[in-house]
Amino acid sequence: MTIKALDHAATNPRIDRFLAENQPVTPCVIIDLEIIAENFLNLKRAVPAGQIFYAVKANPAPELLAQLVRDGSSFDTASRGEIELVLAAGASGDRISFGNTIKKERDIAFAHQQGVKLFAFDSLPELEKIARAAPGAKVFCRLLTEGEGAVWPLSRKFGCTVAMAEELLLKAKTMGVIPYGLSFHVGSQQIDLMQWEKAIGTCAGLVKSLAQKGVELKLLNLGGGFPAHYHDPVAPLDNYGQQIMTSLTKYFGNDLPEIIIEPGRGLVGDAGVLQTEVVLISKKGDGDDRAWVYLDIGKFGGLAETMDESIQYRLVTPYAAEPSMPVILAGPSCDSADILYEKTDYRLPTKLKVGDRIQILSTGAYTTTYSSVGFNGFAPLKTYCI
Amino acid sequence: MTIKALDHAATNPRIDRFLAENQPVTPCVIIDLEIIAENFLNLKRAVPAGQIFYAVKANPAPELLAQLVRDGSSFDTASRGEIELVLAAGASGDRISFGNTIKKERDIAFAHQQGVKLFAFDSLPELEKIARAAPGAKVFCRLLTEGEGAVWPLSRKFGCTVAMAEELLLKAKTMGVIPYGLSFHVGSQQIDLMQWEKAIGTCAGLVKSLAQKGVELKLLNLGGGFPAHYHDPVAPLDNYGQQIMTSLTKYFGNDLPEIIIEPGRGLVGDAGVLQTEVVLISKKGDGDDRAWVYLDIGKFGGLAETMDESIQYRLVTPYAAEPSMPVILAGPSCDSADILYEKTDYRLPTKLKVGDRIQILSTGAYTTTYSSVGFNGFAPLKTYCI
Repeated sequence: MTIKALDHAATNPRIDRFLAENQPVTPCVIIDLEIIAENFLNLKRAVPAGQIFYAVKANPAPELLAQLVRDGSSFDTASRGEIELVLAAGASGDRISFGNTIKKERDIAFAHQQGVKLFAFDSLPELEKIARAAPGAKVFCRLLTEGEGAVWPLSRKFGCTVAMAEELLLKAKTMGVIPYGLSFHVGSQQIDLMQWEKAIGTCAGLVKSLAQKGVELKLLNLGGGFPAHYHDPVAPLDNYGQQIMTSLTKYFGNDLPEIIIEPGRGLVGDAGVLQTEVVLISKKGDGDDRAWVYLDIGKFGGLAETMDESIQYRLVTPYAAEPSMPVILAGPSCDSADILYEKTDYRLPTKLKVGDRIQILSTGAYTTTYSSVGFNGFAPLKTYCI
Repeated sequence: MTIKALDHAATNPRIDRFLAENQPVTPCVIIDLEIIAENFLNLKRAVPAGQIFYAVKANPAPELLAQLVRDGSSFDTASRGEIELVLAAGASGDRISFGNTIKKERDIAFAHQQGVKLFAFDSLPELEKIARAAPGAKVFCRLLTEGEGAVWPLSRKFGCTVAMAEELLLKAKTMGVIPYGLSFHVGSQQIDLMQWEKAIGTCAGLVKSLAQKGVELKLLNLGGGFPAHYHDPVAPLDNYGQQIMTSLTKYFGNDLPEIIIEPGRGLVGDAGVLQTEVVLISKKGDGDDRAWVYLDIGKFGGLAETMDESIQYRLVTPYAAEPSMPVILAGPSCDSADILYEKTDYRLPTKLKVGDRIQILSTGAYTTTYSSVGFNGFAPLKTYCI
């Protein structure tokens, strides 16, 4: 597969204008809040039965959170730190889900004090922590899924088997918390729409089985997985929504439970553009067929999702896409693992030179927060929300 | 290979005392500056012909840099940010090498203004930048090496072929800079001592060839590669030193060039202990043969070198090593890639419980700076120097 730089028509005019007027020091990410507002509406339209809990980990920039608070979003959080950010942005605790299945008991207690009602778990020890630190909480159990079809790898790190989930939700009733629902995650940047159907079917079976045993679950949390636009084309958001609504109806009829979706990448990914500078273009010897292009952003400065070249970003240079040359793209640090794309066949314009600026598109999610505090002495990736 | 937790005898008494007295919030790294002072002397003894340029990227903690300034170290830096840190710690510019082969021209100019004399390059465009921004500088050319035997992967990201190095150093003479030397890097955590012999032999050949063409190189920069103590045993530092001194003598006789070594991991790795807390111990289903142990530190909080399970840290728990259970170790974030050891067979004491503290040994290098600014809302990894 060959990935070619796009020409300038692919860029966002508002972001272009900001970059031209402000000439910010690179590297930096510019977030267009208007796109996020638009994506929020599109997601609501696509999954009308669902309530949106924005996955804060995708991008916790305060202006972005404030915008989503105004839009009426709720929030999926991974830690006390994220809960504090959401509260500071103006949302009350009842709009927050503590969705990490790995929590310190004192952080659960903190969330409980702040009015957070909804807590995830996938094991007995975690359920016990919630029962002790947040009595009366609504708990939902995360099921193990395989993540087939997801671009970003999904491991067995989260979730438990259906049998264990059933056992734990039955037990929850006796522990002073409310066995409230189920959740799953089909894997981030999921391109196989049928993965939702499969998971929803599994959940429906478990809901029925539990109802027969006296536990009426109220909630189905469909997690994230909605894609951003990287190199490979993705289906329109509406197709995702239709598939999800169809699967829900297939398994639950018209009596749907409360539905939560947790978009992160799908909500903010396409709203961001990363501006970077070309630091060096070189070859290692006279026989080399590819040039090394070194940028001022790398794996440890925010582009962690280039790990194993999983996420393949689209690039825009100041030049027409052709004529082009094959390149290896790497970051600026002295770490030999700091290579962005070597196995993937990226091509950049032959005219490209040191000092040129490149836009990396769809970098609104999972970039700034992966950035290291100062690896090799480089400052963390800066964000501008416009 | 099975990796078992060590018992308490493996810990550092000064660090133990600090942890017991201060009970710092986890996760954090404690650096014992006395060990660094000792390692500095040991390295000087092991490679008597060498001048130590500490690789700042391994750990740029201000107190650590100040200690090395007092010890008489020089410094290998990767960026303007690192140069500023070293200057702030009290070293003058002539004790600094700008060792990254990927530099912005304005950062080269900054270094030049601060009195930095020594600059690395591995390509014509970089040499041209140095000639423009730092006229009169001493330049050294980095050679491509294969990195066989190194635990942390070495790619083709740095260095050029011998033929290209020769051409560039001849050209440097005509560009207003001083063609001063050669450098190489055998790969971080190198366990095959003969890799130095091989690289030194290559350099000696190039030095001779250039001398015949009127360029007298003065410097040989042997880079880093000196190991810290992770799970697998490593040869004593003296063996490394003897091998290097033997190889130098073999190829250069008694008329040695100036020698630089750039230890990072080998100087500060063993001086650090990372204190972490067990957040959760669970299984995914009743049939699982391994427990998942989730710590409050993960791949994005500082343990980036667990990538592909390359660096295998030694762990100390509050319990005797036996009886033990097989575990998968993972970090606290909602990222499914945040798993530390799954392929490697780690075993931890059966008694281990949520809330216990674990010491991760030899975490003084390449931990704190890899830490993300706040992935999943977790604060960056904190350092205490004692």
